[in-house]
Amino acid sequence: MSAYRPLTASGLIDTLAALPSVSAILGGNTADWGAREVSDGNLNTVFIVSGPLGSVCCKQSLPYVRVDPSWAMPLERTLFEARWMQHVSPAVGHQIPTLYHLDEGLFLIVMENLATHHVLRGALIAGLAPAGFAARIGEFVGHASFATSWRAMPFEDVHAMRDIFSRNLALTRITVDLILTDPYRRDCARNHWISPALDDLVTAIQQDSALHAAVERLQERFLSCGQALLHGDLHTGSVMICGDDVRVIDGEFALYGPIGFDLGMFTANLIMNAYAQPEHDAWMRDEIALLWSGFRHAYLERWEQSGARGDVGSLSRPTVSSAERTRFFQQVMHDCAGFAGLELVRRTIGFAQIADYEASQDREQEVEARRRALITGRALIQRAFQIDSPEALLGMI
Amino acid sequence: MSAYRPLTASGLIDTLAALPSVSAILGGNTADWGAREVSDGNLNTVFIVSGPLGSVCCKQSLPYVRVDPSWAMPLERTLFEARWMQHVSPAVGHQIPTLYHLDEGLFLIVMENLATHHVLRGALIAGLAPAGFAARIGEFVGHASFATSWRAMPFEDVHAMRDIFSRNLALTRITVDLILTDPYRRDCARNHWISPALDDLVTAIQQDSALHAAVERLQERFLSCGQALLHGDLHTGSVMICGDDVRVIDGEFALYGPIGFDLGMFTANLIMNAYAQPEHDAWMRDEIALLWSGFRHAYLERWEQSGARGDVGSLSRPTVSSAERTRFFQQVMHDCAGFAGLELVRRTIGFAQIADYEASQDREQEVEARRRALITGRALIQRAFQIDSPEALLGMI
Repeated sequence: MSAYRPLTASGLIDTLAALPSVSAILGGNTADWGAREVSDGNLNTVFIVSGPLGSVCCKQSLPYVRVDPSWAMPLERTLFEARWMQHVSPAVGHQIPTLYHLDEGLFLIVMENLATHHVLRGALIAGLAPAGFAARIGEFVGHASFATSWRAMPFEDVHAMRDIFSRNLALTRITVDLILTDPYRRDCARNHWISPALDDLVTAIQQDSALHAAVERLQERFLSCGQALLHGDLHTGSVMICGDDVRVIDGEFALYGPIGFDLGMFTANLIMNAYAQPEHDAWMRDEIALLWSGFRHAYLERWEQSGARGDVGSLSRPTVSSAERTRFFQQVMHDCAGFAGLELVRRTIGFAQIADYEASQDREQEVEARRRALITGRALIQRAFQIDSPEALLGMI
Repeated sequence: MSAYRPLTASGLIDTLAALPSVSAILGGNTADWGAREVSDGNLNTVFIVSGPLGSVCCKQSLPYVRVDPSWAMPLERTLFEARWMQHVSPAVGHQIPTLYHLDEGLFLIVMENLATHHVLRGALIAGLAPAGFAARIGEFVGHASFATSWRAMPFEDVHAMRDIFSRNLALTRITVDLILTDPYRRDCARNHWISPALDDLVTAIQQDSALHAAVERLQERFLSCGQALLHGDLHTGSVMICGDDVRVIDGEFALYGPIGFDLGMFTANLIMNAYAQPEHDAWMRDEIALLWSGFRHAYLERWEQSGARGDVGSLSRPTVSSAERTRFFQQVMHDCAGFAGLELVRRTIGFAQIADYEASQDREQEVEARRRALITGRALIQRAFQIDSPEALLGMI
């Protein structure tokens, strides 16, 4: 373990040279290696290091938010991302990058470089993503959430895993503030929107006390309902894609929470893409249905296996009662709908918005897309607990 | 901090002599002090130490279950009881004994001796408990659960508190096994019941797959729904009473969970007393109504105050929307009904049964009381999520 310092390209190369397993992947020696900074997300520094035989991706925390150095941020976030990779990889295999090395002193992750992959959000905007990708994401959520749930493991093991991510305070604080609180507050300077075109909807959202009660119900679900280990930031920018190969990255927000949070966030990002690019409407509806069916199939597949050892389900295993199955998926759908609503609102008027809107043909279409997101978001939050099926969800979009 | 050894009376006196604050309570010097073992619960050794000025109660863990030395049990349980006292006392004041001292090496708690109090269960059986006691228990649950909830504190503080009790594995394992699992398993040797008089009901309970699905739903609620810090074992044997002074003791099972667990366990113990002693029927119904109204009033009192700083409820505070209030108390009642059902079943056919049944006039009345408990318990588990009010609950008894 090394003392922390923000790495330069040459410092990174020296660090990797001391790791035989990484050196073997790169091939040759340090004189043959090149490091290139490719930082793209908001928080961290990312380098690709290439050698004669191969390449690796290196992600290091900075003691602040990369895009806003005045915003201090604990270095530990990289550790949570690595822990997330370690804990979900047995269940999801190659649906995440392979973790080669974690340096807990440098807060540095060395992992598989997905050289031929593209970030899904950009591919979607460019119309280049292959149809059906969302089935793989649903499968990922189904396998990761079942494997880390109270149905899969004795509660002692869940407690141990939950406690690790319970300390992921800085990034959970971001979620609580930016998703679950700020967009509904009139006095929050971090909000921004197209004014005056959206003023009427923003005012309505920020003054609707019944809506706020529904948001608070989702605050309570998010914080107190620890069903499974979530990715915690599963939008289309957290997915890399190359043909049929779909990888989930950036698990630094991981925490125990309601499974519908991950599904809802991803669903909302598909909805916003369809609103920004109306020619994607039928496609995105298909993807949302595939997300859900992929999730349901993957989760049930594990639930119906006899290998689970969890304290929940101990009486009927491996049989799954049809009433309980129905109830479980309805409850996940309620959460999915509600959290999708929150994501629609916060990506449209909150601090961190999305590039999809800029793909609109013109300002008028962008305003229309954003208005639809706010109207749908508000309706999903208010009616979340009446939305029982993917059909009902699609009927609200 | 001292090295662990099971204390004898004289060893305990030497230990207390080194504590100025405890010596001041007792008065005089060690030659004037007497220690008397009063162990009564299943798990620990309890001494009362008396001096010229006063007395203290001393509770020490043994490395096994006191009543079954072949059952190993980690010493740490005393630490969890002390932590529970420390964390709830600011909210509940004198509704728990005052903690004078914790020795983390000896796993020894020194606390207020409730010399004039009686254990509620015995007082109930003897018909000596003063009417209205359950209002105080409801108030205790309301204040303790609100103060430790996501509505009262920033989530960072809840995580820190939850993580402490997340390590209370040995006693949580007892709850998971003895309450949430064993009574529904045909092959569990720890179950015992009056045979053949109860055989038909026991067989039905152990073969009813729809019931098992409902039990599993409560397993999931108990483990994954961390609403507040629970007492975790709130039956009538965990309450000491003297006139209007009602104290909750024995918090060693404390953990984060659904508030309705504590309320349901206490409710079930009142129901079983009424079944065993039918002359208490109207009285116990009154107490159950008072338990609920006391809880509701106390929880709401804190909810409507402006001092709360929790992330849940941040948008509407200190206003409480009537829809959200209704929803919240309905949901707690669902849990209360379901967990009451589990407690009725496990105290009638499980490992740890209750003395109230032995207060029945004769064997025939005892069998009748136990049959009613099993029938009501099964119905409460199955219909928990349709029981919305104390009236609906009382209608099921």
